[in-house]
Amino acid sequence: MALEPTRDDKFSFGLWTIGWEAQDQFGSATRPPLDVVEAVNRLSDLGAYGITFHDDDLFPFGSFPTARRTQIKRLKGALESTGMVVPMVTTNLFSHPVFKDGGFTSNDRDVRRFALRKVLENIDLAAELGAETFVMWGGREGSEYDAAKDVRGALARYREAVNLLAGYVTDNGYDLRFAIEPKPNEPRGDILLPTVGHALAFIETLDRPEMFGVNPETGHEQMAGLNFTHGIAQALDRGKLFHIDLNGQRGVKFDQDLVFGHGDLQNAFSLVDLLENGGPGGSQAYAGPRHFDYKPSRTEDFDGVWDSAAANMRTYLLLKERAAAFRADPEVKAALAISKVEEINVPTLNPGEGHAELIADTSSYEEFDADAYMGGKGFGFVKLQQLFIEHLLGAR
Amino acid sequence: MALEPTRDDKFSFGLWTIGWEAQDQFGSATRPPLDVVEAVNRLSDLGAYGITFHDDDLFPFGSFPTARRTQIKRLKGALESTGMVVPMVTTNLFSHPVFKDGGFTSNDRDVRRFALRKVLENIDLAAELGAETFVMWGGREGSEYDAAKDVRGALARYREAVNLLAGYVTDNGYDLRFAIEPKPNEPRGDILLPTVGHALAFIETLDRPEMFGVNPETGHEQMAGLNFTHGIAQALDRGKLFHIDLNGQRGVKFDQDLVFGHGDLQNAFSLVDLLENGGPGGSQAYAGPRHFDYKPSRTEDFDGVWDSAAANMRTYLLLKERAAAFRADPEVKAALAISKVEEINVPTLNPGEGHAELIADTSSYEEFDADAYMGGKGFGFVKLQQLFIEHLLGAR
Amino acid sequence: MALEPTRDDKFSFGLWTIGWEAQDQFGSATRPPLDVVEAVNRLSDLGAYGITFHDDDLFPFGSFPTARRTQIKRLKGALESTGMVVPMVTTNLFSHPVFKDGGFTSNDRDVRRFALRKVLENIDLAAELGAETFVMWGGREGSEYDAAKDVRGALARYREAVNLLAGYVTDNGYDLRFAIEPKPNEPRGDILLPTVGHALAFIETLDRPEMFGVNPETGHEQMAGLNFTHGIAQALDRGKLFHIDLNGQRGVKFDQDLVFGHGDLQNAFSLVDLLENGGPGGSQAYAGPRHFDYKPSRTEDFDGVWDSAAANMRTYLLLKERAAAFRADPEVKAALAISKVEEINVPTLNPGEGHAELIADTSSYEEFDADAYMGGKGFGFVKLQQLFIEHLLGAR
Amino acid sequence: MALEPTRDDKFSFGLWTIGWEAQDQFGSATRPPLDVVEAVNRLSDLGAYGITFHDDDLFPFGSFPTARRTQIKRLKGALESTGMVVPMVTTNLFSHPVFKDGGFTSNDRDVRRFALRKVLENIDLAAELGAETFVMWGGREGSEYDAAKDVRGALARYREAVNLLAGYVTDNGYDLRFAIEPKPNEPRGDILLPTVGHALAFIETLDRPEMFGVNPETGHEQMAGLNFTHGIAQALDRGKLFHIDLNGQRGVKFDQDLVFGHGDLQNAFSLVDLLENGGPGGSQAYAGPRHFDYKPSRTEDFDGVWDSAAANMRTYLLLKERAAAFRADPEVKAALAISKVEEINVPTLNPGEGHAELIADTSSYEEFDADAYMGGKGFGFVKLQQLFIEHLLGAR
Repeated sequence: MALEPTRDDKFSFGLWTIGWEAQDQFGSATRPPLDVVEAVNRLSDLGAYGITFHDDDLFPFGSFPTARRTQIKRLKGALESTGMVVPMVTTNLFSHPVFKDGGFTSNDRDVRRFALRKVLENIDLAAELGAETFVMWGGREGSEYDAAKDVRGALARYREAVNLLAGYVTDNGYDLRFAIEPKPNEPRGDILLPTVGHALAFIETLDRPEMFGVNPETGHEQMAGLNFTHGIAQALDRGKLFHIDLNGQRGVKFDQDLVFGHGDLQNAFSLVDLLENGGPGGSQAYAGPRHFDYKPSRTEDFDGVWDSAAANMRTYLLLKERAAAFRADPEVKAALAISKVEEINVPTLNPGEGHAELIADTSSYEEFDADAYMGGKGFGFVKLQQLFIEHLLGAR
Repeated sequence: MALEPTRDDKFSFGLWTIGWEAQDQFGSATRPPLDVVEAVNRLSDLGAYGITFHDDDLFPFGSFPTARRTQIKRLKGALESTGMVVPMVTTNLFSHPVFKDGGFTSNDRDVRRFALRKVLENIDLAAELGAETFVMWGGREGSEYDAAKDVRGALARYREAVNLLAGYVTDNGYDLRFAIEPKPNEPRGDILLPTVGHALAFIETLDRPEMFGVNPETGHEQMAGLNFTHGIAQALDRGKLFHIDLNGQRGVKFDQDLVFGHGDLQNAFSLVDLLENGGPGGSQAYAGPRHFDYKPSRTEDFDGVWDSAAANMRTYLLLKERAAAFRADPEVKAALAISKVEEINVPTLNPGEGHAELIADTSSYEEFDADAYMGGKGFGFVKLQQLFIEHLLGAR
Repeated sequence: MALEPTRDDKFSFGLWTIGWEAQDQFGSATRPPLDVVEAVNRLSDLGAYGITFHDDDLFPFGSFPTARRTQIKRLKGALESTGMVVPMVTTNLFSHPVFKDGGFTSNDRDVRRFALRKVLENIDLAAELGAETFVMWGGREGSEYDAAKDVRGALARYREAVNLLAGYVTDNGYDLRFAIEPKPNEPRGDILLPTVGHALAFIETLDRPEMFGVNPETGHEQMAGLNFTHGIAQALDRGKLFHIDLNGQRGVKFDQDLVFGHGDLQNAFSLVDLLENGGPGGSQAYAGPRHFDYKPSRTEDFDGVWDSAAANMRTYLLLKERAAAFRADPEVKAALAISKVEEINVPTLNPGEGHAELIADTSSYEEFDADAYMGGKGFGFVKLQQLFIEHLLGAR
Repeated sequence: MALEPTRDDKFSFGLWTIGWEAQDQFGSATRPPLDVVEAVNRLSDLGAYGITFHDDDLFPFGSFPTARRTQIKRLKGALESTGMVVPMVTTNLFSHPVFKDGGFTSNDRDVRRFALRKVLENIDLAAELGAETFVMWGGREGSEYDAAKDVRGALARYREAVNLLAGYVTDNGYDLRFAIEPKPNEPRGDILLPTVGHALAFIETLDRPEMFGVNPETGHEQMAGLNFTHGIAQALDRGKLFHIDLNGQRGVKFDQDLVFGHGDLQNAFSLVDLLENGGPGGSQAYAGPRHFDYKPSRTEDFDGVWDSAAANMRTYLLLKERAAAFRADPEVKAALAISKVEEINVPTLNPGEGHAELIADTSSYEEFDADAYMGGKGFGFVKLQQLFIEHLLGAR
């Protein structure tokens, strides 16, 4: 297997990632702006297949229509000349002061209406560029103070907003699905829909739930101490993994947005294994873009930017290679069998069995030797984990 | 308002809370066992209205039927003599070695069948005792190692299991609803359905979702750094707050199970405010038991046990008193208005307005002065928060 | 006791706090710059006694000497007209791109030399303004990647740097002490000297340890899940609490910099109790400035800025009032006695007792009834805690 | 390099690790007790060189002298027959109810005296067995409630206690040093001396600081979100790494005690690199035991116990192999040079340079081009990190 990315790998990057000027909470920019055409060209050279953006990445908030069109034209030109695509577009309802209490759920109704208009306009652009997915990260939808936000009211407004958007997409015949991106906190003290679970639950309350999925980000789940692979699995369980944001995070702290694989390596490995080998018969469980939403460290100049972009893809491919070897190893297969990992896919009930039949089966309970699990019937999980680690380390 | 608890306050306690012998991960018991009759009598004297239990709290795992009946009879006698009730029963699929890899989602199918039988038997008992809610905390449903658990398979088995239980309850005509209790980790490295959000999303995938709600525990959400009040609000938004576990936690660490109010006081205050005043017209938003799932600290003897039980109720009543004063204060009302907290309940769209009408309204976008939010149009949230804190401190 | 702040309360604020323009990691400024003269005047009106600043707060990085002098003169004028003082000055080695890998511990030696010069110049200014304390927060001293920083080398350079500064202060006869401000992470992935403990340990390795203490910040310790009051106690134990930064943080997450008391209320209460009543005979344990290092929320305009400044002081005074009542309550005194809280101040050994005498005392071991602590000899901590909470809530 | 452990690798295990019966906070034991002789023999077969224990691991709390001597004799016999050693002994002041508020810092003076006696007796045993290090983990020294513990008083008692112990060791001519093991929380809500930093600072306050160092545990630092390698580096900076506890932890949560390398792999890799290659000329920076303080997962039977023991050593050796390759790779050396990692070891000041000379050097400040760091002078850290990760993955 090659470690050189190709278009078939479907690697994509946000324009705001490689274009991040590295201004953070405690310091000013360390890099100049990056032009979108340069971005497309360089990413194309590195082997990516797509670029994504927030409206405000491409043209500044409040740009006049002519300025917008100029930038769109320039982007289109670069896409044409390189063959790159825009698989996803997203919207910025968090940077401008008007969104200081959020967009869809600002306490200020005028802001909510403004936010809807801004997003509608951006949806048109997404459709124009052929994007399949429209991501919504509600980074300012939340609060610092419990009394300052009526959360049920805010969820109702969130619902109202995205229902309107779905209707707009439907009425316009756009081939576009929505993906909600959860995050527990930062920049708000607490953000609404803080985890994959909360977003999945919210989607079930929408008018057109089939148009909505999630766009989980590695670091966002891990900021809550949650297992990213577990969250992705629950999303896949409902067919709701519409898009994914890959990056690196080292524990429960501020949002680090490191290169994929530069955070929790184990979890990155199991994630790639799930995405690449978790489908039927060991096929891919997810066929969409492998999208990197990361930040080249503030210590870097543009050499570091491009090195880091390449590192994301190379690490993914390395982990994919390792995962394939892990799945192919007879010793792993034996360990998986001992650990009964596949037995979880055998229904607990016999075919046709209901509670009456189960109760009638005395071998299930009355005659079952529960005490055999004391001092025996170990699951062999540590041995399996060691094989997992050794494959990750390329030591087998 | 009185600070003496009465039956109308619907305070209930787990038998395993006051009865905790205080054996922990690093030390042996510091208190002897507590008899269930003594527990009922003392809680009754303190003003509680209910007691709850796991099957294994009332009689040891594997007890013979006669021993079970003896204990049930003793419990019933105590309930009758005191007027106490059993509003909830829960099941223990986590203590015995047989459940070392979980109950409903153990990799071992035999264990899963055994677990189902154990729960079915316990459901009968719950019905016999008139419990309205059957809580399921799947503390061992999870894994330490990503390769050791096929999470989608495990979710499928979880679903299979609780669907069977719901069918059993329905077929038997029991008046019982299920409440799933999420937890992010401990004792497993990662637990399935780690937060309120994940549990709500899972419920939507069940055969009879209307029979399932959540039983969120204060500390469990806070162990993931999540805002408990926010989680409760999302559960209420879907009518899914079937039961609640109140206690105290001081941040992202092991499960502390402190007395309610001995953890994050602000969040406890906003929670009580939501439960007591968050319904229509300022009524209760939740009418079920106020259930304390806490552990009297290991440093305490039985005096400390009963002091701590009383402390839970007294703190709740104090916060309820404070919340009523907060809501009644004209200065608070003025601050809420300035912060537009109620405006979140005004739909963003005008009556009958769709996307076409919204787009046609140039005041919403083209003429909207977004820049007025720079250096102006502050939300006054800090002032509101200070009023919140001062009411909490009884300083107004 | 009055809740109106006076100069005697020694409340001080960073110019960068009320002057924060509210640009954060995910959004642009929501407030215009605040002039230093306005800042001094408003703080004075609110009852503060002091203002503090980083060099770059007063005049932009790289200002010409004349611009510097103009600003210094304006500040001095405001101080004179109001009677406000500058008890502390601090230095900014984190905002400009030159410090992207730190100041004193940048891998780049030229940067380290530049950083030293910048600080030396700022020390002159601190001395000119009569500051007693020079705070150093090394926010960029650290790394994201373990291989990128030789930590022992970095500690050696840190030591070299602050030793030079101490020599400079000594040689110039300045009446100035240094206070190191720890922080675990953000903006760097890991920051050197991450906690009060690490800073205290580092100080012992300096040439002139007596000139160095710590400036702990509430939120910084709590970002590591540590008990701030415990950290302050250890600093006081060594006479090293040279300065303190008060604010609010709600758990292990990004640095929130909320108003003091708007985070962990319990810990804020115990802190104020320690500072105000923890000295000999119940006197103050710390007599220095009560310095607020917080950020008015980004949702606020200038009304919110001044409301939040006032809230810091008012909450402190409220907690001080509550702490005095707690200490004076006979029931609390009785509970403290039962919990043997004061007995910790009785030496474990008898006067003159050494190991030989202790071993000879069979009552200490051979005849000691350890098992009496099973089921008995409870410490009554929960009851004491409930009294603590009720005093905090103003409910006694 | 071989991956088979030998005695020269100095791998040691706590008797309580492989002997853990897997009773945890939420469940009963899943494994029977392990006899000490069996433990020594099996560890010897696996390639370990040493075993360690708490007094209460070897014989139950309160054992009669004859029972103690029997066990000691059996242990000695096993050591002799295998050639295994006891490099460290530690003491249990946390399991028995008598220590429910701690040992050295219990509020109850009688308990403190009892604790001292228990430890003195155990020191005799450590000396008898030839241990070089006496570890003290004060797991119960702390509090849940801020008002329940006078931390300064507790630190004074801690100091009094360990000063007595050091005097005893000195007076008896024992060749024994003490190592304090920090932990932030669990089982207490907050534990005294919560991190390596706090322990190092405390040591400086002792009568015989030279006799005291630290015994940092991987997971304990990571439970506070701290970088373990950084902590070890600060300990090495002061010559205070007397012993080390290796294991695995996956983030800020309860104490997991996983196999070394089964937690944060990156940090494990940089740690091994520091220990093995961080000394002068690339030599070992630490020559003591590589001690594993972990828990075989509760899901395992004894096969899993021994597999997990072997996994600890194998992973260490694998990482050692990887670290050697990392250091030898010319591309890494080039990247380290670009990142100026070694330049941190060049003093910032020229030989003989003081503040006057530095100020006179206008190239350091007045003529220094700080703005060159905007858009340039990148540190190349991400590229270096990618090399680090690829070596860890065995991909170079």
